[in-house]
Amino acid sequence: MTIGEQVAITFDDVLDAAEQVKGVTNVTPVFTSRTLNDLTGREVFLKCESFQRTGAFKFRGAYNAISRLDPDVRAAGVVAYSSGNHAQGVALSAKLLGIPAIICMPTDAPKVKEHATRGYGAEIVFFDRIAVDGEAFQYEVARERGMTVIPPYDNRHIIAGQGTAVLELLSAEPNLDAIIAPVGGGGLMAGCAIAAKGMAPRIRVFGVETLGADDTKQSFDKGERVTIPPPPTIADGIRLRTPGDLTFPIMQSLLEDVLVVTDDDVLDALRFVITRMKLVIEPSGAVPVAAVMKGLVPDGCQRIGIIISGGNIDPALLSTLWA
Amino acid sequence: MTIGEQVAITFDDVLDAAEQVKGVTNVTPVFTSRTLNDLTGREVFLKCESFQRTGAFKFRGAYNAISRLDPDVRAAGVVAYSSGNHAQGVALSAKLLGIPAIICMPTDAPKVKEHATRGYGAEIVFFDRIAVDGEAFQYEVARERGMTVIPPYDNRHIIAGQGTAVLELLSAEPNLDAIIAPVGGGGLMAGCAIAAKGMAPRIRVFGVETLGADDTKQSFDKGERVTIPPPPTIADGIRLRTPGDLTFPIMQSLLEDVLVVTDDDVLDALRFVITRMKLVIEPSGAVPVAAVMKGLVPDGCQRIGIIISGGNIDPALLSTLWA
Repeated sequence: MTIGEQVAITFDDVLDAAEQVKGVTNVTPVFTSRTLNDLTGREVFLKCESFQRTGAFKFRGAYNAISRLDPDVRAAGVVAYSSGNHAQGVALSAKLLGIPAIICMPTDAPKVKEHATRGYGAEIVFFDRIAVDGEAFQYEVARERGMTVIPPYDNRHIIAGQGTAVLELLSAEPNLDAIIAPVGGGGLMAGCAIAAKGMAPRIRVFGVETLGADDTKQSFDKGERVTIPPPPTIADGIRLRTPGDLTFPIMQSLLEDVLVVTDDDVLDALRFVITRMKLVIEPSGAVPVAAVMKGLVPDGCQRIGIIISGGNIDPALLSTLWA
Repeated sequence: MTIGEQVAITFDDVLDAAEQVKGVTNVTPVFTSRTLNDLTGREVFLKCESFQRTGAFKFRGAYNAISRLDPDVRAAGVVAYSSGNHAQGVALSAKLLGIPAIICMPTDAPKVKEHATRGYGAEIVFFDRIAVDGEAFQYEVARERGMTVIPPYDNRHIIAGQGTAVLELLSAEPNLDAIIAPVGGGGLMAGCAIAAKGMAPRIRVFGVETLGADDTKQSFDKGERVTIPPPPTIADGIRLRTPGDLTFPIMQSLLEDVLVVTDDDVLDALRFVITRMKLVIEPSGAVPVAAVMKGLVPDGCQRIGIIISGGNIDPALLSTLWA
């Protein structure tokens, strides 16, 4: 499968990634709920990346990308900027590979993610998300220190690594009608779409965003990348202003649609999953659950696989969910 | 294995219970955590009854007991009194078996448990836990309505049903050195001990209580059942004043010791499991985790199986954990 004109990311890349991360990443469990199935009239399968190392899918791509760097380049260390989960993925990968890591993190990142990132031994350099462009900032840091930037989504091995989640899901539950996932920069979504279509060409693939953070939906409808104002959504993992350069054409080619839910829908889904399914998930992880609970996934998609992005919810949010 | 003088509850009862509940109860997953293993210096296996139907182990025993009643007796319905999880176990069992259920519930039971119990179609009759003896009250209700009381722990089929959790755990992880579980009335603990010793005679078995709710520890040390004042512990599932008539001799015979942790230890364990392991568990479920985290389990118990009683934490408590 060849996507776009300049870059070809194929199903083989995802299979190679699965080999590369084998025994390092967790094969995460798939959960079902009679209550959720009754509520939605579908059979829903939650692939819980909350149980991935670092508590989120990002570790898959980060480890795949970093472990493939040339040994000399890799030894000098890696730099990343991230609102949280990518930071932890890069930090843990660096630790496991015995190399230094610097994380450029916005000052308003959830404390739980900051502490966890430090816990993996990374150095943190803060920047103001409003005033400074994090992407440019990380390259300055990397140049100063002679390190390599690990981008959060626009990278072949990152995208392929994230797709391994769907390989596992479709191995555990082969007969799914649809795969849905949250869309931030599109790394997870693009990787999952390539993996899904590679394993089951007739499967239907949907992204989900929140209203106000629907840059990919707007881009999808317009046929070109749209940039939106800094999105205020509660789903911090998908607070991006534009889809990725590499990821967008993949999503254009493989997604049937991008669904849009509200923050209130996300909060309802969060409360449901925490209270009834006993799973700690992050707001971005609840985004696709909200789409299914609201009935936004088209008829005919009876058996639905959902990628739960992670479980790194800020305790401050957890404390206010029932206020 | 014959326990006590009057009552013999055997490993065969647990095996029979497993047959009886098969396909009705969930085979719950076992979780591990590299971080927890590093922190404790042990290999810890969490058997998560939070993923049991109704969110707690109680459904195992309730379904085993109710489904074994004579059809005529069963059809008239069942009555139970419970601080929560037993209520839901009885209510769902009755619903699945198509019979009426009345739950006598203390007025201060967590709202989440009250709502869930109603959701399973049971009628609720409230009583004041301080002024009224719930055990006597349920028999009055049962007499008035011509129904059968399903006791929360002092019943052969209840105890045997709870033990099926350990059959599953030891099937998944055969080489454990120790099994530990929270002790309330002792139904879970006694059933788990019988199952553990039946499958692995040399395995070491420990109960855990909280300081102030350590009626079983005091009874264990004294060699006879002790009754304590109404215990104020945060672990609502183990707020009992004395161990069971049936369960105590089983625990005396099969437990190596009863360990005691504080409410603060339980809160630390709760926060750890929720934040780092991404599992929603109830305070009683965190009680044995606290014992392992505090290093109370003796040396030589390297591979430890913990029974997590359930995941029915009151959202009000969840909201204050990080205050």
